[in-house]
Amino acid sequence: MRQPIAILDSGVGGLTVVKEVMRQLPRERIIYFGDTGRAPYGPRPAEEVIRFTREIVDFLARFDPKLIVVACNTATAYALEAIRPHVKAPVVGVIRPGARAAVKRTTTGTIGVIGTEGTIRSGAYERVLKSLSPRIQVVSLACPMFVPIVERGAFQSPETYRIVAETLKPLRRTPIDTLILGCTHYPFLADAISAAMGPDIALISSAQETARDISTMLQESGRLSEWTDVPVHHFYCSGDPELFQTIARQWLKEQTAGVPIVWRVPCIR
Amino acid sequence: MRQPIAILDSGVGGLTVVKEVMRQLPRERIIYFGDTGRAPYGPRPAEEVIRFTREIVDFLARFDPKLIVVACNTATAYALEAIRPHVKAPVVGVIRPGARAAVKRTTTGTIGVIGTEGTIRSGAYERVLKSLSPRIQVVSLACPMFVPIVERGAFQSPETYRIVAETLKPLRRTPIDTLILGCTHYPFLADAISAAMGPDIALISSAQETARDISTMLQESGRLSEWTDVPVHHFYCSGDPELFQTIARQWLKEQTAGVPIVWRVPCIR
Repeated sequence: MRQPIAILDSGVGGLTVVKEVMRQLPRERIIYFGDTGRAPYGPRPAEEVIRFTREIVDFLARFDPKLIVVACNTATAYALEAIRPHVKAPVVGVIRPGARAAVKRTTTGTIGVIGTEGTIRSGAYERVLKSLSPRIQVVSLACPMFVPIVERGAFQSPETYRIVAETLKPLRRTPIDTLILGCTHYPFLADAISAAMGPDIALISSAQETARDISTMLQESGRLSEWTDVPVHHFYCSGDPELFQTIARQWLKEQTAGVPIVWRVPCIR
Repeated sequence: MRQPIAILDSGVGGLTVVKEVMRQLPRERIIYFGDTGRAPYGPRPAEEVIRFTREIVDFLARFDPKLIVVACNTATAYALEAIRPHVKAPVVGVIRPGARAAVKRTTTGTIGVIGTEGTIRSGAYERVLKSLSPRIQVVSLACPMFVPIVERGAFQSPETYRIVAETLKPLRRTPIDTLILGCTHYPFLADAISAAMGPDIALISSAQETARDISTMLQESGRLSEWTDVPVHHFYCSGDPELFQTIARQWLKEQTAGVPIVWRVPCIR
């Protein structure tokens, strides 16, 4: 049995990482856990985010994953270091990949970051960006309305476009040339964010960049799957399974045509 | 003394990797060796490329590098596995980074690769691309005229634009949406290549992508430089030092303002 990549998130946001791993590494088997019953994590205190993340990592460890991906920026900011000692698999977060891609992309050296209150308050992006290049300037903005919009599945409504444009207004007066979508839920809103920011601002998806870095880490350590059959992916969530499956099927439809998926609702709480 | 990153190439091509490492990781110290006296490597037999690469790696090992970057696609294709057992530092090539970035970028799944005769004949890109995703289609083209143009320093002449357009003509009839510049010399010709291919083809610079992956590997293993002073870079070449310095100064000028550089001509041959 091939070792899977385990991916976890507070809800459906980590599906943006799943989609990119399926696209960039179609031989890899994925076990996903979305904590939809307790999303959003953004407003929760750090110790609660750490406890929830540890519960999920303990659950995912049963599948003997070769890599655990914390596909939630809030959980990466608060819980990554706390969970690393508890599991034998390497644990990867989503903050460093987006930061590295933004440093590669910027020409002005001024980078914007949007995320949940928790992610922005933690200052994690600014710390990682400065550790790469001390010259980088960072402009951060918390967008607490975005995750609830995505968890409801309302990505394309005119009301969503209006809220996104209104929320991002403070960034339009800043000299950023690159904007990190510092929450894995935000690629669902990429069209609305792009419309609000205009064509001159490069959007960095921490989901897409994390998949790219998973590719780097597995390939450079000789741990890519060499199986040639179609992998069977497993999806778990802690909340309403109907809503989760609707969003997941819609978001992953290009990647999952002909790919078997097993849906489960576990009793983690 | 901080451990440097050692970067080697058959000539000036690896300077495209140097520029990106300086830009993305300005705290890192670089030791560069360009084998300008024996460039190009493209038409040479495999055993000669392996012998030359081992000589250079032995020379660079004296500086106790934390990472050795074979910033030459031909040497990566032929010599990477042969030199790994001879050095204690991790050795990174330039083929996998470009391949991973192309898989991330393509939407049609058909990727073009241009490189030296040696790189294209080795089939290395096709092998790496298929190991990531078996569905990828690859169209390859050897461009033997390009390295000599760059080593002469003639990046922008009308004659160069004509040769580049003529050479790339066979690719224009193919369904590629992404083109890997599978030679670190080619970013010097990016303007001419872009003019020949048109705006709809995404160009992947293996130099830029290798710097991004160096960032990933050093950061994820906790080996980024934490020094805050300006690093002193060292440059060595085996051929005409005047021509080498002229090309290097011109190519690196934005990155090296105020950065001390030591130029050396060693007696490797």
